[in-house]
Amino acid sequence: MRPLKDLMPVLAHDVASSIDVPPFDRAAMDGYGTVASDLAGASREKPRSLRLEAAIHAGDAAAPVISPGSCVQIATGAPIPSGADTVVPVEETRREGESVLFFKEIQTGSHIIRKGEDIKKSSAVFPSETWLSPARVGALAALGFEKVEVFARVRTAIAPTGPEVIRPGRPLGPGQVYDINTFSLRSLLHAHGAAPSTFDIADDSLESLERILEEAESHDLMVFSGGSSVGEKDLLVDVIERMGKVFFHGIAIKPGKPTLFGEVRGTPVVGMPGYPTSCLMNAYTLLIPLVRRMAHLPTFHPPRIQAPLGATVRSHQGKRHFLTVKVTGGKAVPAFKSSGAITSMAWADGFIEIPEDTTVLPENTPVTVILF
Amino acid sequence: MRPLKDLMPVLAHDVASSIDVPPFDRAAMDGYGTVASDLAGASREKPRSLRLEAAIHAGDAAAPVISPGSCVQIATGAPIPSGADTVVPVEETRREGESVLFFKEIQTGSHIIRKGEDIKKSSAVFPSETWLSPARVGALAALGFEKVEVFARVRTAIAPTGPEVIRPGRPLGPGQVYDINTFSLRSLLHAHGAAPSTFDIADDSLESLERILEEAESHDLMVFSGGSSVGEKDLLVDVIERMGKVFFHGIAIKPGKPTLFGEVRGTPVVGMPGYPTSCLMNAYTLLIPLVRRMAHLPTFHPPRIQAPLGATVRSHQGKRHFLTVKVTGGKAVPAFKSSGAITSMAWADGFIEIPEDTTVLPENTPVTVILF
Repeated sequence: MRPLKDLMPVLAHDVASSIDVPPFDRAAMDGYGTVASDLAGASREKPRSLRLEAAIHAGDAAAPVISPGSCVQIATGAPIPSGADTVVPVEETRREGESVLFFKEIQTGSHIIRKGEDIKKSSAVFPSETWLSPARVGALAALGFEKVEVFARVRTAIAPTGPEVIRPGRPLGPGQVYDINTFSLRSLLHAHGAAPSTFDIADDSLESLERILEEAESHDLMVFSGGSSVGEKDLLVDVIERMGKVFFHGIAIKPGKPTLFGEVRGTPVVGMPGYPTSCLMNAYTLLIPLVRRMAHLPTFHPPRIQAPLGATVRSHQGKRHFLTVKVTGGKAVPAFKSSGAITSMAWADGFIEIPEDTTVLPENTPVTVILF
Repeated sequence: MRPLKDLMPVLAHDVASSIDVPPFDRAAMDGYGTVASDLAGASREKPRSLRLEAAIHAGDAAAPVISPGSCVQIATGAPIPSGADTVVPVEETRREGESVLFFKEIQTGSHIIRKGEDIKKSSAVFPSETWLSPARVGALAALGFEKVEVFARVRTAIAPTGPEVIRPGRPLGPGQVYDINTFSLRSLLHAHGAAPSTFDIADDSLESLERILEEAESHDLMVFSGGSSVGEKDLLVDVIERMGKVFFHGIAIKPGKPTLFGEVRGTPVVGMPGYPTSCLMNAYTLLIPLVRRMAHLPTFHPPRIQAPLGATVRSHQGKRHFLTVKVTGGKAVPAFKSSGAITSMAWADGFIEIPEDTTVLPENTPVTVILF
């Protein structure tokens, strides 16, 4: 039950400062602007009295000039008057009519925030590819930026296929099921830097797959769900081969074996399995890194917890196995029902990864659960 | 350099299923629908031959009926024909004209996804307050939901104050600085469930603070920055006391002591310090939990790492100290410059928390860095 990592924008160019931050010497506290040497020898017994010349508030444009023997009242953030070199906090003084009593010496420069102390004019502030955390957004504001360029979201087409699949919200006819993958993929990929757009559900005909791939150029990434198995009607491989290139088809993982990766007109095309859990599980393991890389986002480190396995699990030699689990009673209890059941994931808290050469994990084996 | 946790929507009502998922028995693989008992005794040497009656594709509305001695070709996802009780994968068969040869026995019910196997009709699926992970969004789609109600973002007013503060994008006049807090707060709070809206920068006059608080009722939360210290011109406390209630003013933390919490017309009001690092640091520790709770989001567990401290750090007895650090060369190196310097946070990777009763942390003390 943890939220997904989301993205903050990522800067698409270097940022340098065109101003000093702060742009002028400022008072760090409410008090009095003085010349520190005026207070040499001051003590509780022998306070120094300085003539109060004026008051400066934050935002005041014209700062007065002070000379030895005088001081100005100054508010936090207000510009230090020319001639003053120190701010004495109000708590360490006493006002007496037109004068102020000072009870101790103070080091020159105390309680002043120097011009450029935060960011120096003409300095390099952030390189391109910097993740704009809230503090960095704040720093850009401090420099006066109203806008900066950031990397765009990855324009990701989601193309569901399958003659039996219909959009939620309509009544089901016989033999029909609701489209799941469009919605689970959209939710996941949006959270990792994609701007998803959805095609109408395609039947598994050559023509309808071609029609979708004709639009490859106007997307950064195309994701099909369904149609990548090897059944009689799975034509996606053929169509991609004809219009572009298939890099691989089939991965030694479970679930999600029939995943396909190719390219059409320069746009990467991924064929995800039609089974909802295979599709979404593969999206976690394969699409998140791809989309984040394309969006210039830093590597995703999902939250993980350690727990003993709640039941003995068997796995196929030679296949990496992603097994969904529910963390309950301190144990990682297998939650996988079938690749076709979305509740294999929806009622799980995360998954464990079983290596290719492991065929059995006995109950109570310590495992790492990667949380959704 | 890690992305912030973002939110997924949180369900605002219980969800029950009005249909079975899947809505009918489906083939789990491409193959042949058969009566399992027809294949009793089948072997590679003595294959059984069954008459091929028809082919059923996914999405086919009317499924044929089969009787013992016959089979139907069936595609993954297609409805099981009435009379069939088993699907034999195509790999385990051989087509011979109008018949199909079967080479082994099969258990009744194999390779069929049962109606309701994923989600049973009329069952409780998700309680209210469920975080809608991508898989859960998928499950809602599987049930046919086009829309569900989720909790709204927290309507959060951000009200910057200070006569010296101006919006970025305009030229600075003498004594002026750019507004930082509006932008850092907006970025942080949006990522944790707020819908931020921004007021114009208020001078520290009674009237302008009152004017903003007059609008308390149309927000869920009001956040001021600046104006909560105890200087001559810090009137926010007075105004809130007059219009509502101040619950506390001042916290034993560093930075961020002059933080204020109150209520006006039923809306919580927070007065954040004006110093950018104090303001944002306090937002991490105080506003994130508040906003997430109001948004019904699960508790935020920021990513943490362990590292030895890169330098000796002194801290005030009696104050909890949040110290920003940069993780570099495997050490947590203090990055704090001053409360007024946004680069205290913008060039840091996270912060450490120093307890109230600790006055010194020697170099190389192991510390937990809470990453931004």
